[in-house]
Amino acid sequence: MDLQPVLDGIVAALAPLAGAEGKVADYIPALACISPQHLGLALRTCEGAASQAGEGAQPFSVQSISKVFTLTLAMRHLDERELWQRIGVEPSGTAFNSLVQLEFEGGKPRNPFINAGAIAVADRLVSVYGQAGAKAALLALVSDLCGEPVVFDEAVAASEAATGFRNMAMCNFMKGFGQIDNAVEAVLDVYFHQCALRMSCVQLARALGYLCRDGAHPLRGSEQVVSERQARRINALMLTCGTYDAAGEFAYRIGLPCKSGVGGGIVAVMPDRLTLAVWSPPLDEAGNSLLGQVALEQFVSRTGLSVF
Amino acid sequence: MDLQPVLDGIVAALAPLAGAEGKVADYIPALACISPQHLGLALRTCEGAASQAGEGAQPFSVQSISKVFTLTLAMRHLDERELWQRIGVEPSGTAFNSLVQLEFEGGKPRNPFINAGAIAVADRLVSVYGQAGAKAALLALVSDLCGEPVVFDEAVAASEAATGFRNMAMCNFMKGFGQIDNAVEAVLDVYFHQCALRMSCVQLARALGYLCRDGAHPLRGSEQVVSERQARRINALMLTCGTYDAAGEFAYRIGLPCKSGVGGGIVAVMPDRLTLAVWSPPLDEAGNSLLGQVALEQFVSRTGLSVF
Amino acid sequence: MDLQPVLDGIVAALAPLAGAEGKVADYIPALACISPQHLGLALRTCEGAASQAGEGAQPFSVQSISKVFTLTLAMRHLDERELWQRIGVEPSGTAFNSLVQLEFEGGKPRNPFINAGAIAVADRLVSVYGQAGAKAALLALVSDLCGEPVVFDEAVAASEAATGFRNMAMCNFMKGFGQIDNAVEAVLDVYFHQCALRMSCVQLARALGYLCRDGAHPLRGSEQVVSERQARRINALMLTCGTYDAAGEFAYRIGLPCKSGVGGGIVAVMPDRLTLAVWSPPLDEAGNSLLGQVALEQFVSRTGLSVF
Amino acid sequence: MDLQPVLDGIVAALAPLAGAEGKVADYIPALACISPQHLGLALRTCEGAASQAGEGAQPFSVQSISKVFTLTLAMRHLDERELWQRIGVEPSGTAFNSLVQLEFEGGKPRNPFINAGAIAVADRLVSVYGQAGAKAALLALVSDLCGEPVVFDEAVAASEAATGFRNMAMCNFMKGFGQIDNAVEAVLDVYFHQCALRMSCVQLARALGYLCRDGAHPLRGSEQVVSERQARRINALMLTCGTYDAAGEFAYRIGLPCKSGVGGGIVAVMPDRLTLAVWSPPLDEAGNSLLGQVALEQFVSRTGLSVF
Repeated sequence: MDLQPVLDGIVAALAPLAGAEGKVADYIPALACISPQHLGLALRTCEGAASQAGEGAQPFSVQSISKVFTLTLAMRHLDERELWQRIGVEPSGTAFNSLVQLEFEGGKPRNPFINAGAIAVADRLVSVYGQAGAKAALLALVSDLCGEPVVFDEAVAASEAATGFRNMAMCNFMKGFGQIDNAVEAVLDVYFHQCALRMSCVQLARALGYLCRDGAHPLRGSEQVVSERQARRINALMLTCGTYDAAGEFAYRIGLPCKSGVGGGIVAVMPDRLTLAVWSPPLDEAGNSLLGQVALEQFVSRTGLSVF
Repeated sequence: MDLQPVLDGIVAALAPLAGAEGKVADYIPALACISPQHLGLALRTCEGAASQAGEGAQPFSVQSISKVFTLTLAMRHLDERELWQRIGVEPSGTAFNSLVQLEFEGGKPRNPFINAGAIAVADRLVSVYGQAGAKAALLALVSDLCGEPVVFDEAVAASEAATGFRNMAMCNFMKGFGQIDNAVEAVLDVYFHQCALRMSCVQLARALGYLCRDGAHPLRGSEQVVSERQARRINALMLTCGTYDAAGEFAYRIGLPCKSGVGGGIVAVMPDRLTLAVWSPPLDEAGNSLLGQVALEQFVSRTGLSVF
Repeated sequence: MDLQPVLDGIVAALAPLAGAEGKVADYIPALACISPQHLGLALRTCEGAASQAGEGAQPFSVQSISKVFTLTLAMRHLDERELWQRIGVEPSGTAFNSLVQLEFEGGKPRNPFINAGAIAVADRLVSVYGQAGAKAALLALVSDLCGEPVVFDEAVAASEAATGFRNMAMCNFMKGFGQIDNAVEAVLDVYFHQCALRMSCVQLARALGYLCRDGAHPLRGSEQVVSERQARRINALMLTCGTYDAAGEFAYRIGLPCKSGVGGGIVAVMPDRLTLAVWSPPLDEAGNSLLGQVALEQFVSRTGLSVF
Repeated sequence: MDLQPVLDGIVAALAPLAGAEGKVADYIPALACISPQHLGLALRTCEGAASQAGEGAQPFSVQSISKVFTLTLAMRHLDERELWQRIGVEPSGTAFNSLVQLEFEGGKPRNPFINAGAIAVADRLVSVYGQAGAKAALLALVSDLCGEPVVFDEAVAASEAATGFRNMAMCNFMKGFGQIDNAVEAVLDVYFHQCALRMSCVQLARALGYLCRDGAHPLRGSEQVVSERQARRINALMLTCGTYDAAGEFAYRIGLPCKSGVGGGIVAVMPDRLTLAVWSPPLDEAGNSLLGQVALEQFVSRTGLSVF
């Protein structure tokens, strides 16, 4: 099945709607000034065939999509027991930045894809690599998966740090429960940088190719980024927890493991077939790209792809 | 792949552990007196090949597994908008019988597989069929799917009714929010009866065969029980919400859509391949069969099956 | 100090505002049809001097003010330990009809003045007196304190029963936690009747006279309704828990133990001085009489009375 | 009534129990190393008569009792509307350091005596005085009220700062809601210092003498520390919110406005009569001095004092 016409058809159908509804994330200036009319798609199959449409090659702030990369790093360096001792694998049933669940559950975040969970993963990475090392390791991993250099947008990272009171609250709260080993500043420095990764849909579809290839490196197939079993588990976490408090809605309507970011990007994985990335900045109330979801719905409807 | 040896191997491996850990549901006498040592498995492929092992043919109280059947009935008779107006599709992040979420969200249950959601579905069915009609329609559907008569265990239904204070609380609570149209007694009569369906693993694997067959009737393939799209959506709901507050754990460890009941049964679906049912009464703290989960883990490990 | 001019002055000042703001309770027809313009005050000193102004002699539905009488009955017949085993003495920090706190605290209501707590008190009374006996004992107590017959408004009681889904939810919820001994129907019959007591400000000020007289009977001073210590404790509970989730505001602005009802009545106690009752049906968002609070503020401002 | 024998009698009765039950606060070393056997009492009447017993003259860390002083400072310099815009006056119904309420109520603390509320008060003081100025103004006020210099225990303040992750979480959380105007570090510096005030029971009973004297300065009666109305309101807040999630229990059992600290001190006020301070380090589960409460109960029982 040639998927280029599918992507082109989606862009043709949705371009007139770009920017019409939803609200671009505005909690930091660097995100608030993005045009709501951007629309990009890109996919890459297991076999390495790549397609893109619209602004698929335009880099943007991947924000929470980076949580998949940091989880991957953590899974590569920590055994299962160690990793999941301080982070759960359950949907939270609350907003991505809620502290209520933390208070009721002893400071243990429900999963690695809510902010608190990603901060806990960052703490694990600081323990393994140190503060500077964790940032370097993340860039190295993502650049290697892309086959080209990927960098942090330092202006975005600085802006996140300057306004990230709720994330500071969360990290201190977990630390108060004894769930964070390193200094709050070091952990959040890593966290704020990971949020500031700047990538295009093309790069995301390529870099996260190991999730549709049973863990195999997207560019060097004989090398495992993670094991087959780990790749499946990351996909499972994306499906149950990857899109904030709308994971059920995504599973129901789209039926693919997805991870979204407030920059307006969403990555979806169809195991053994392809990885797909979409980008449209305006968000719905749950914090997921509004038109991105429509694009994914049209994609699964036109291709019949679904894990179910 | 011949799956009979897989089932036999699982029974051989787990039989020595049957009843060793966990706790049989004891909130009603009819469940409390079940031997913790029962162990049964059964599966049926899309093509109709059936296997079973242990006490796969022994009937037991399916309890919440019946929520899949009542949701199916509701989907057949209500349009999407009407059905989901009063019931969500998100994981709850709380115990299956929590009232907290209802209070914070205006009496709208998070999904059709927590108790509150199933009670809301029962209310929809009473509106469509009447009280007696809803029970009759449920038996008719399940019997037709099984190809043999299925009945309610009236002693269990009476026992549920006599002790179901929390379910009465939930139904009254939702009614206070204007989310229940019919009399509380009528709605709960249907709900308590559906919990009292008595079926074996063999029957469950057969009856829920439409979920691995894109909605096609398990015995009459040219007939759709629900549409392909609806079957996928039921599977999605099972994966994100089917096992109480352990759906993430199930997705992570087992990777198949599952629905459990406190009778100790669990049904799992591998789309386009098979439907599988396991039964072992002792439960873990989340209310899911302890050995049932181990059996499912062994099954996916031995067969490599997973939606991810 | 002659208090008649104080009451007259308050009525003169507030009469023009009667009915202008707030919202009459409308969850049952019998309350919804009350004119918002009623305004009544009455007080009775420790020495037995009585004053009234406006519609002080007009009976109305006392609703939750009755919780003081049922608590008094329970304190007379149960020892402290027995009584407080299932009911707390802390402010709830949530709305009067919330179920959240019950779920987190094992079905034990925070205090006897939120609905759940009053239902728990009613259960204790049914255990002591039986269902019919509890209602009879309540009428006997209140009539004796008033020195004239007081009755239930059966239409209000029936209306409460017909629409009291949330109270039914609460009672079943507590029963599910094992915190209610008697049948839900019997307990709620007592509760719905107590809410339907019909009394005037004059009667309330007289009947609750024992709270400003260290427990001494308002009409027969040598007889204790409750002990001095018990009277103080009821006053303490009124101050910390008597006005739903606005007890802090009342303590701060008015500085007297108060108990309010959604019929628009509020009773206030100045120990060793007087008991005061006000009535104005329109309520604020917390469920307390809007003008009733203003009347109490003016009263304490003009008299300088305060427990603080 | 000569109160010296009352204090002596309480010390005689309780000294044998000192240190037997409860747990000294151990979250910072400076508190953890305090002997659990300290026991002190002191009171001062409206007329200026002072009594003490046991270690009444021994200074200790007043911790949260200081929240009364900072609230007093804020009331002196801000009008009512300005002060209560960001802080409520209701009991919280939760632990003193809970973040749940903040999340549900937009970052506005329920009252000035829970930690979040005191941090919000500190923010107001920093706006009025600046960071250094706020600390200086607090010392000046307390020293003036005592008639002798009072200082911060800098070791305790440093220790609070080094381990105060939950307070840092709270302050950042409120700042994220736009409820804190100044830098988190400045606000917490003031807050951690106020917790580290070091005073004896004798000093506390003297300094808080304005609360039993309708606001009049304890040493210079013609001068108002706060107005009569403000003094009553502080007393009201102490009664409804001064002892964490045990305010109802205190009102019920003791019947006086009280403010406690985790250093083991409790101050109680009987308006128009006296201010009383007790000190015994071991705490109950709510964080209030265990023996301190017993001492207060004995005091009110022996003297018959109560606001109710």
